[in-house]
Amino acid sequence: MKILIIHGPNLNMLGKREPEIYGSTTLEEIDSALVTKAKELGVEVTFFQSNSEGEIVSTIQDAMSKFDGVVINPGAYTHTSVAIRDAILSSGLAVVEVHISNVYKREDFRQKSFVSGVALGVISGFGINSYFLGLSGLVEHLSNQ
Amino acid sequence: MKILIIHGPNLNMLGKREPEIYGSTTLEEIDSALVTKAKELGVEVTFFQSNSEGEIVSTIQDAMSKFDGVVINPGAYTHTSVAIRDAILSSGLAVVEVHISNVYKREDFRQKSFVSGVALGVISGFGINSYFLGLSGLVEHLSNQ
Amino acid sequence: MKILIIHGPNLNMLGKREPEIYGSTTLEEIDSALVTKAKELGVEVTFFQSNSEGEIVSTIQDAMSKFDGVVINPGAYTHTSVAIRDAILSSGLAVVEVHISNVYKREDFRQKSFVSGVALGVISGFGINSYFLGLSGLVEHLSNQ
Amino acid sequence: MKILIIHGPNLNMLGKREPEIYGSTTLEEIDSALVTKAKELGVEVTFFQSNSEGEIVSTIQDAMSKFDGVVINPGAYTHTSVAIRDAILSSGLAVVEVHISNVYKREDFRQKSFVSGVALGVISGFGINSYFLGLSGLVEHLSNQ
Amino acid sequence: MKILIIHGPNLNMLGKREPEIYGSTTLEEIDSALVTKAKELGVEVTFFQSNSEGEIVSTIQDAMSKFDGVVINPGAYTHTSVAIRDAILSSGLAVVEVHISNVYKREDFRQKSFVSGVALGVISGFGINSYFLGLSGLVEHLSNQ
Amino acid sequence: MKILIIHGPNLNMLGKREPEIYGSTTLEEIDSALVTKAKELGVEVTFFQSNSEGEIVSTIQDAMSKFDGVVINPGAYTHTSVAIRDAILSSGLAVVEVHISNVYKREDFRQKSFVSGVALGVISGFGINSYFLGLSGLVEHLSNQ
Amino acid sequence: MKILIIHGPNLNMLGKREPEIYGSTTLEEIDSALVTKAKELGVEVTFFQSNSEGEIVSTIQDAMSKFDGVVINPGAYTHTSVAIRDAILSSGLAVVEVHISNVYKREDFRQKSFVSGVALGVISGFGINSYFLGLSGLVEHLSNQ
Amino acid sequence: MKILIIHGPNLNMLGKREPEIYGSTTLEEIDSALVTKAKELGVEVTFFQSNSEGEIVSTIQDAMSKFDGVVINPGAYTHTSVAIRDAILSSGLAVVEVHISNVYKREDFRQKSFVSGVALGVISGFGINSYFLGLSGLVEHLSNQ
Amino acid sequence: MKILIIHGPNLNMLGKREPEIYGSTTLEEIDSALVTKAKELGVEVTFFQSNSEGEIVSTIQDAMSKFDGVVINPGAYTHTSVAIRDAILSSGLAVVEVHISNVYKREDFRQKSFVSGVALGVISGFGINSYFLGLSGLVEHLSNQ
Amino acid sequence: MKILIIHGPNLNMLGKREPEIYGSTTLEEIDSALVTKAKELGVEVTFFQSNSEGEIVSTIQDAMSKFDGVVINPGAYTHTSVAIRDAILSSGLAVVEVHISNVYKREDFRQKSFVSGVALGVISGFGINSYFLGLSGLVEHLSNQ
Amino acid sequence: MKILIIHGPNLNMLGKREPEIYGSTTLEEIDSALVTKAKELGVEVTFFQSNSEGEIVSTIQDAMSKFDGVVINPGAYTHTSVAIRDAILSSGLAVVEVHISNVYKREDFRQKSFVSGVALGVISGFGINSYFLGLSGLVEHLSNQ
Amino acid sequence: MKILIIHGPNLNMLGKREPEIYGSTTLEEIDSALVTKAKELGVEVTFFQSNSEGEIVSTIQDAMSKFDGVVINPGAYTHTSVAIRDAILSSGLAVVEVHISNVYKREDFRQKSFVSGVALGVISGFGINSYFLGLSGLVEHLSNQ
Repeated sequence: MKILIIHGPNLNMLGKREPEIYGSTTLEEIDSALVTKAKELGVEVTFFQSNSEGEIVSTIQDAMSKFDGVVINPGAYTHTSVAIRDAILSSGLAVVEVHISNVYKREDFRQKSFVSGVALGVISGFGINSYFLGLSGLVEHLSNQ
Repeated sequence: MKILIIHGPNLNMLGKREPEIYGSTTLEEIDSALVTKAKELGVEVTFFQSNSEGEIVSTIQDAMSKFDGVVINPGAYTHTSVAIRDAILSSGLAVVEVHISNVYKREDFRQKSFVSGVALGVISGFGINSYFLGLSGLVEHLSNQ
Repeated sequence: MKILIIHGPNLNMLGKREPEIYGSTTLEEIDSALVTKAKELGVEVTFFQSNSEGEIVSTIQDAMSKFDGVVINPGAYTHTSVAIRDAILSSGLAVVEVHISNVYKREDFRQKSFVSGVALGVISGFGINSYFLGLSGLVEHLSNQ
Repeated sequence: MKILIIHGPNLNMLGKREPEIYGSTTLEEIDSALVTKAKELGVEVTFFQSNSEGEIVSTIQDAMSKFDGVVINPGAYTHTSVAIRDAILSSGLAVVEVHISNVYKREDFRQKSFVSGVALGVISGFGINSYFLGLSGLVEHLSNQ
Repeated sequence: MKILIIHGPNLNMLGKREPEIYGSTTLEEIDSALVTKAKELGVEVTFFQSNSEGEIVSTIQDAMSKFDGVVINPGAYTHTSVAIRDAILSSGLAVVEVHISNVYKREDFRQKSFVSGVALGVISGFGINSYFLGLSGLVEHLSNQ
Repeated sequence: MKILIIHGPNLNMLGKREPEIYGSTTLEEIDSALVTKAKELGVEVTFFQSNSEGEIVSTIQDAMSKFDGVVINPGAYTHTSVAIRDAILSSGLAVVEVHISNVYKREDFRQKSFVSGVALGVISGFGINSYFLGLSGLVEHLSNQ
Repeated sequence: MKILIIHGPNLNMLGKREPEIYGSTTLEEIDSALVTKAKELGVEVTFFQSNSEGEIVSTIQDAMSKFDGVVINPGAYTHTSVAIRDAILSSGLAVVEVHISNVYKREDFRQKSFVSGVALGVISGFGINSYFLGLSGLVEHLSNQ
Repeated sequence: MKILIIHGPNLNMLGKREPEIYGSTTLEEIDSALVTKAKELGVEVTFFQSNSEGEIVSTIQDAMSKFDGVVINPGAYTHTSVAIRDAILSSGLAVVEVHISNVYKREDFRQKSFVSGVALGVISGFGINSYFLGLSGLVEHLSNQ
Repeated sequence: MKILIIHGPNLNMLGKREPEIYGSTTLEEIDSALVTKAKELGVEVTFFQSNSEGEIVSTIQDAMSKFDGVVINPGAYTHTSVAIRDAILSSGLAVVEVHISNVYKREDFRQKSFVSGVALGVISGFGINSYFLGLSGLVEHLSNQ
Repeated sequence: MKILIIHGPNLNMLGKREPEIYGSTTLEEIDSALVTKAKELGVEVTFFQSNSEGEIVSTIQDAMSKFDGVVINPGAYTHTSVAIRDAILSSGLAVVEVHISNVYKREDFRQKSFVSGVALGVISGFGINSYFLGLSGLVEHLSNQ
Repeated sequence: MKILIIHGPNLNMLGKREPEIYGSTTLEEIDSALVTKAKELGVEVTFFQSNSEGEIVSTIQDAMSKFDGVVINPGAYTHTSVAIRDAILSSGLAVVEVHISNVYKREDFRQKSFVSGVALGVISGFGINSYFLGLSGLVEHLSNQ
Repeated sequence: MKILIIHGPNLNMLGKREPEIYGSTTLEEIDSALVTKAKELGVEVTFFQSNSEGEIVSTIQDAMSKFDGVVINPGAYTHTSVAIRDAILSSGLAVVEVHISNVYKREDFRQKSFVSGVALGVISGFGINSYFLGLSGLVEHLSNQ
């Protein structure tokens, strides 16, 4: 089972700034921990980070023939991108949406997600553990099919 | 570590009707599986189900001195209960909100949660696995404190 | 054919106050007249009144195996209860919503019903005759199935 | 007692299309059944159908001196016609609003009625039985005055 | 100078019902008084009343080559008719909108006028004197051109 | 009969700027013409202009014992002043609201009037003739009482 | 293949007024050009213009058994008529909605269409060519069925 | 004179948590102080606290024949309960609404009260003194009747 | 302890008009009673009434160095004045907002207060007793600091 | 005459997924058919597809000196991109907006287009024929200038 | 070149309270620094501060014949005053709007400005430097005309 | 002191089209003038223009370690980009937002800025001078720290 993990815009800054919101772990450390978690679950993970909406769209399209599922933290594009929503729809892949912080405690415009309506499930607020829970939930779902 | 698991209104009907939305597992089977999951995580779980907003409020208040954290599926009260929100606030407990179905695919009034803004984290859409992921996320959080 | 008739919060006050809105007939008199009406229709009626949202939810759940249909005047919970809506959905019963006064002539917040969208039909404004018409409409519907 | 029954726009198409929403009974059959029902109730019914808002307005005005009450299914004009609302107001007649389908299960714009606020009562969702219930409710109301 | 005076839906009921809102003068008496007023102003007036939106639209179109201006009380169509607005626009005529009652003291939906934005001016609340003031204002306007 | 004519903020600038909206007549010329008009109607007029909301409020209060009615062009305070609304209410005087331009052709925030709901009537869009029509309508109204 | 072309309210005024919005071609010239266009496409066209919402509703109903499809420019009724929407729905015909001007460049209330949601397709902004494109699109669609 | 004092949901937690919002006085201490205050005012007070909306509704109904007035802090139900509003209406009792914190400084959803519109008066923001002021205001009101 | 009592616009009309809303007591009588009440509480009161928003702003600014607290009935400026809100903020004084009538029973625009969010507390609906309760609450608050 | 045809995000997936919405024709087949159609119209077409908003903006800017007009299917960026709107504005080119599906039958957020307000015309719902109609409409428009 | 600098309500309190928002510089110090800045720019500055909306309106009107431009910090009237907007419009002067704090980081009601739409430009958030930048921007603009 | 100046989408078109809104100066000329201005202020400026949201996000991230502050004209992304907002937040840099035109005079959707809430200050409407004022304000701010 092959899983693609997509980090949206500004997630490459993790651990460098605003630790009170996002913690002090870097993206590299998260990816490294996810590799370990994936091995426990017996799946293979690949990573992609981009600040570009278009590149994320293209990556989701390409994932269609290469991966069994996607864990995505769409970052700011969560709230503004219909294109990512459409890419998920047209890829037909099972996609899990994760957020490090609890978005429901933040500004109003962060409550709206264009991704949630086409995702398998959503996980928000568990810090970097949101990624592990999301990966675990996705693998469980795919195993049951 | 002691965790209280609260099932809100109508969750006692799980497995009896609307399997296309909520699946065919009964609440008893979920609780039984949660006991197993809890043992794996090395924690103790207690269950409470009620159709009454007031009883859920009282139960959260009582949990303050008896439990380390709460996993709650507030059911329909998610969208209408300020009293449960206030009970969580006044209990000071770490609370994880879980939903079996992906609420973001359903009616507009199900998008609003009075609980999310005071929860540690939110998990939605993974079927009964939402409970397991929520329990796991809560235990991980409490272990890190 | 067995029909459950549910009276929501404050309907036990009927005939005691605000006769200009709700008339001077008491709830006991309504129930008594409904028994007569039921006999004419050849059905059996049972009554339940409660001021508690949770009790109404539980009663609808229990009705699933005991009754063929429900006539409900949800009173104030019409406008605020997603839990009652969900109970109706999960019971799978045919439910008719009735109101004594014409709610469309009253405050804005009384225009919204969480029940109507899951009811078989809605009757509003005929005084206590709303109950008789609702019972009649429900029985006719059940007879045609 | 003389009752005018008004069918609004497109109701002349009943039974010809969209039976999944409106059933397969034609308007002629409804009118015929209403005559029978009226006889049982000891009242006289007259029918009027029009696709024209203006004609319905004029018909309601004329009804003032000729009828004791009106049962109206305003069809699409329910949601857009202030003129029909004003005609009802200026006629001073008791008017019952009926709908074949449960409008609360349909599009948002069908939830708003300009007629309900000036009607005696509203009945929605009982199929053609909505007409019979409406006629019955109106006759009962007029008999009590 | 020739002026067309258009009375919208239900204005033929003036003086017959709801005198507390519209007074007890009939439309015939208003028209008769307007003839007198017109003579004083040295202009000729023609009257048209209809309950049909389409007929009012056609009448405004025809007025283009026959009249110098229009005084219109659009009644209920004030709040709902884009077609009358467009007819006024395409006729190119100076049009004065009048209302007998003060619409700003009534329901919210009566505050919106599709006509006001294309009218020369608007007069509301002076009883039947609204017509006389409107006619006077229109004649003054046309005289100054 | 004594009438107070109140000109709100910026109306002292009439004829000095923005003639395309308000024309080229000065406020002094308007007042002068109103004196003439008043003589024709057999009434006495007094003028008051202020840019201060508070002064207009005080003037309306004082008018209570000195005048039979008020013609007011509240200018920009039309859209923002609850205090002027309350002054009119507490004075108990018949008040006519006038506007030189047709406010319904302008910005959205100019469509809302706090004054209209407590005015006898409203006249908008007839240039300075709005004042004459307003005075005439007020005198007619007072004469009929 | 027989196509009905419906022109809504005020379209009979085309070419007579407001050429800056609608051009200087008259409705007769448009119809004449449509006949030529229809011949090229090998279909037969019939025309209907009305200022009356009710007549347009009736015409769409009648078209059900006589035509293969409809091209409609609903004019002002685009934005206000649920009755025309329902007539299209109940006729079951393929209907193409066309507009001469680009409605998206005009007032806010012209952005809403009750027809678009039940139309096969929508064409807006190409001047009278909108009709030709609409006819062409409809014929192509019907040919493919 | 007998006064019922109702404390809504979570007020039993007063003094136990969130002292920065609600202070450190417990509910028992408040009630004790209210007894003293009541003696000064020469009235008798009875207390009721519940987390259940339905129990509060029933208690208000029962109060009708036993008490002269009610002081209520509806807590979270302030913002969500139409049933408590209706109970107050049907009881016909003079009811004073009090809040410990100034709700106007808190979340938007706490600005809306279903109770205020049917209360005699409202007091918010004076800490536990809100109860004393409310009791004093109620007694003064009842004494003047 | 020195307290400033501010009466906003139109409160100088108290007792002169609209007794059904505001009672028949004049402002002078209220002030006189407040002097008595102040003596009982052992504080000194000074009065200020103005119809001018600017004067109220300046008075609050001046109060900063002369008074310990303010009781204000902002009248109509409650709903429209950000300037008074800012004056309270910049004065740093404890301010209590009072209203004679229960504003929550009146028009929608009277529900919004720019003052409440910066006030110590709010009292509404107790007639002139609102002032006494407000003064009492303020003195109690200042005494506890 | 040279026309640029722009396909927005996810349109490269056409024919690969969701055929029930977008049909089974691939983008390559559409482009090939458009070449044929262009030859019939005597114009030259060039194609551009991108998932990147920025690249589409740059391409429209570049088109200014190389093409006579643009046919664009902005895909998901229709609903979210002010940058594409501005690029069209600053290019000064005639642009036709096309959609394969009828967007007015889909989610609410798909009803809003930032492009329509600056487009020559809009075509929606004709399947891939929308492109042919759009090209035809654009060529006709450019030929008439 | 002569420039009028207007300070709106509460700006006379600058440096006296809330230094965390507005800094510790007093208005006198700002004016003094502005005189220095003006000398550098070779222009003459005059100052005006008022808490009264009406006085600010009058001052802007008077500025028309005496000044070349205006720098205004409308304070709280930014968000509520249509009268100041109209005064700017009718004065025809170039007006620059400045704010000391970044209003976009504050309450929602501070985001709306009635002045911005008629100002030459707007500057917000630079502390007292906002005034210097505004003066500089205005002088540059006037020099280029 | 090193300052990065970012020009958002379509600003490379400056001086080429729409001079009535944006003037006739090209971006190269603005940059050249900014170099001169920077020398006067004793700071170093670097320029970046992109039509890609993602590239602007990456550039802001990179600026964190290379520059002391940023002047940004986010163009169309002002109104739609949460990703740029987040990049500014995570960079921790002082950022000044500038606009050439006065955005408050344009379409409604241009009133909303996702950037303003995280910017140091905002300058709008001074033509290319907005850049100079923004640079000056930023340098002044940085010098004071």
